[in-house]
Amino acid sequence: MTRTLHLNAFLMNTGHHEASWRLAESDPHAHTDLAHYVRLARAAERGTFDSLFLADGPHLWGGVAQRPAGALEPLTLLTALATATEHIGLIATASTSYNSPYNLARRFASLDILSDGRAGWNIVTTAGAEAARNFGLDAEPAHAERYARAADFLDVALKLWDSWEDDAVVADKAAGVWGDDAKIHPPRHEGPYFRVEGALNVPRSPQGYPLLVQAGSSEDGKAFAARYAEAVFTAQQTLPDARAFYADLKARTAAAGRDPDHVKVLPGIVPVIGSTEAEAREQERLLEDHIVHRYGVDRLERLLQLAPGTLELDARLPAGLPSEDAVEGAKSRYTLVVELARRERLTVRQLIGRLGGGRGHLTFAGTPEQIADAIGTWFTEGAADGFNIMPPVLPSGLEAFVDHVVPVLRARGLLRTSYGPRRTLRERYGLPRPVNQYTAGPVSA
Amino acid sequence: MTRTLHLNAFLMNTGHHEASWRLAESDPHAHTDLAHYVRLARAAERGTFDSLFLADGPHLWGGVAQRPAGALEPLTLLTALATATEHIGLIATASTSYNSPYNLARRFASLDILSDGRAGWNIVTTAGAEAARNFGLDAEPAHAERYARAADFLDVALKLWDSWEDDAVVADKAAGVWGDDAKIHPPRHEGPYFRVEGALNVPRSPQGYPLLVQAGSSEDGKAFAARYAEAVFTAQQTLPDARAFYADLKARTAAAGRDPDHVKVLPGIVPVIGSTEAEAREQERLLEDHIVHRYGVDRLERLLQLAPGTLELDARLPAGLPSEDAVEGAKSRYTLVVELARRERLTVRQLIGRLGGGRGHLTFAGTPEQIADAIGTWFTEGAADGFNIMPPVLPSGLEAFVDHVVPVLRARGLLRTSYGPRRTLRERYGLPRPVNQYTAGPVSA
Repeated sequence: MTRTLHLNAFLMNTGHHEASWRLAESDPHAHTDLAHYVRLARAAERGTFDSLFLADGPHLWGGVAQRPAGALEPLTLLTALATATEHIGLIATASTSYNSPYNLARRFASLDILSDGRAGWNIVTTAGAEAARNFGLDAEPAHAERYARAADFLDVALKLWDSWEDDAVVADKAAGVWGDDAKIHPPRHEGPYFRVEGALNVPRSPQGYPLLVQAGSSEDGKAFAARYAEAVFTAQQTLPDARAFYADLKARTAAAGRDPDHVKVLPGIVPVIGSTEAEAREQERLLEDHIVHRYGVDRLERLLQLAPGTLELDARLPAGLPSEDAVEGAKSRYTLVVELARRERLTVRQLIGRLGGGRGHLTFAGTPEQIADAIGTWFTEGAADGFNIMPPVLPSGLEAFVDHVVPVLRARGLLRTSYGPRRTLRERYGLPRPVNQYTAGPVSA
Repeated sequence: MTRTLHLNAFLMNTGHHEASWRLAESDPHAHTDLAHYVRLARAAERGTFDSLFLADGPHLWGGVAQRPAGALEPLTLLTALATATEHIGLIATASTSYNSPYNLARRFASLDILSDGRAGWNIVTTAGAEAARNFGLDAEPAHAERYARAADFLDVALKLWDSWEDDAVVADKAAGVWGDDAKIHPPRHEGPYFRVEGALNVPRSPQGYPLLVQAGSSEDGKAFAARYAEAVFTAQQTLPDARAFYADLKARTAAAGRDPDHVKVLPGIVPVIGSTEAEAREQERLLEDHIVHRYGVDRLERLLQLAPGTLELDARLPAGLPSEDAVEGAKSRYTLVVELARRERLTVRQLIGRLGGGRGHLTFAGTPEQIADAIGTWFTEGAADGFNIMPPVLPSGLEAFVDHVVPVLRARGLLRTSYGPRRTLRERYGLPRPVNQYTAGPVSA
């Protein structure tokens, strides 16, 4: 079978560019408007994307002044979108630090059932003290501890999703026996963080469990991905970096005893599309002109864990910033930003401009053909199994991608031309359905 | 304004009768079939019901042998139903003992936004050790402690739902100011059970917060209802009992400083509908014939907290059962069952037959006119503001109610004949939108 691209549409209110809400075309209330998200989901489905994705954190980050703040809870919104779509996968972010395994496993199983096998879980450990303080903690748990908790969470969630064998429901009306208790397996889990006794109260779902997605690129994050993830979102600025990340993650996955083809790597890309290169640059400039720099300085100081007022707009980053090892927050994003500023010798103002579009993801401005070229190069040169498409402005940026870039990718044989029959999300990504861990091997006839 | 009935459709897989799944007409996989629930929701909307309701507990109760076990997570299922309906309210059960306020408040706000103000929350404290052991506890917390936690949960949830003033989003594109931070109010809650620092990350929803519903009829439950509930579901077997409960709850609500008209009382009723009384009795008998008595004995022994094997099918309940005060589980249900058995001198077999239909709720078998008579009597004689309709078999029992009982109720002027314009769930129940606790009083002009 020919290898083809996997495309994920990363949805975010009026778009990934922080100034997108200020454009004349944008609805500043889009983030609570179901019709806006239905329009986006249908555009992505027209483009035969594999999946939709919503990022998340359980806190209101940095107030509401600078841009659309907060968001509908992702599993809730994706459940509504499940009924408005037919083929596309639905990937929700949810935190292992601020959920209980029983409730979250059940919610994903429920969405997987309601969507006929289209649920995915972007597993995050949630950086930051703001989130911690919404859940009774004084401070953010240490990075390593968050990942240890995530591993225990996954262990018990996987037991819960397998706690009904696929054929546990016998529905024998005559005998008055609905289910076979011998095919129900309570986890009786006693881990370092979680104790969960009983079976899930939802039958095993079409996919067995949601597609497991991960996006942390720190050492802990990559180790976690190698063990559990079936798709990985990553921020990479250059082809060599992206190839190195790709090779490293595949090798780690093999070393963890898994088929490296069973983890799909999707770098994020912010496509700024014009009918000419000049038009694309003009769109990029328009967005940059709408950035409010004092907000950008605030955000950069938070990310770099600097005191307010440290950074100056027209100077470079200060020397002597600590290494990633000393940071407890979003480790890999920290390093990416510091290295980008150093490599390209950017002032704070320039760095804010570069980050405004995609928060560290690669922005690529050009014609549909140029964007398809870049995608094709990364895909064929060992840097990507597909892409996390992050339009700077929504819905127009996603619709432009679907109407203008998708046809080029299809003409080049890089992308499916139709969905064909209904499939699960895991099937779209070319991955096998997980075998239930409690199911005995086949009995010989 | 004429006082009219409020009707809530209590949905449950193949119906409220425990043997319903065994009937030829029933789909034993209905409980995971979205199309089944869409059909039910649309039937209820055809009958101009105020709301749909899903019960819940975060555990697999008593294994899977005896009847359809487990259920899709209610908020998830109701979100899917929100997109398939236009007018009807959506009431989900969720536990204050096994959720965190930040996450749950956010999920209800999200559903309220997605449904244009149709969300309701049936607040439960969740009895039973099985649930407790799915969340790291060894045993069920004491009844009083569960209610103390529920009160703290409500306090912080109400702060979270008010943490955005209604006009916090200013969306000033020219100035680059999206929201007004002065209209965001972090709860900074430090209660006996919960500490929550930050504002919710969802704007205030159309209703302000979901309709608050409650169903516990113990002393703690009634005190809680008087303080918080806007609608109360209750199980009452006789008109005098129902009138006494109604008067008591209204009085307690007034004593708590609230308008007693702002809590609506809805007893549960299991309508077994026939075109003649004999046909209704025949349907009742058909269902009773499908009861598996050994399951009923199991369940009764659990409810009464008796050792397995204590009860005998053709004997009465043993003497010397403890009073409700000594029971930590579902207190009011315990008393209702013990009193029903004593009052009507039922054997265990007869008691199981009576409970099989509605687990303690009133079963009424008759013609549409007879059922409308009963409803009308309770409604006009101070026993009910409306009813929680619990069809024994689904979808047929709900469709029969809508097609045959609803027209009689409408003809008698007891029920609306159409929804009219779109309204919030709280408006349907004739309740005011809550004022934001952080909003200052009106400034004089």
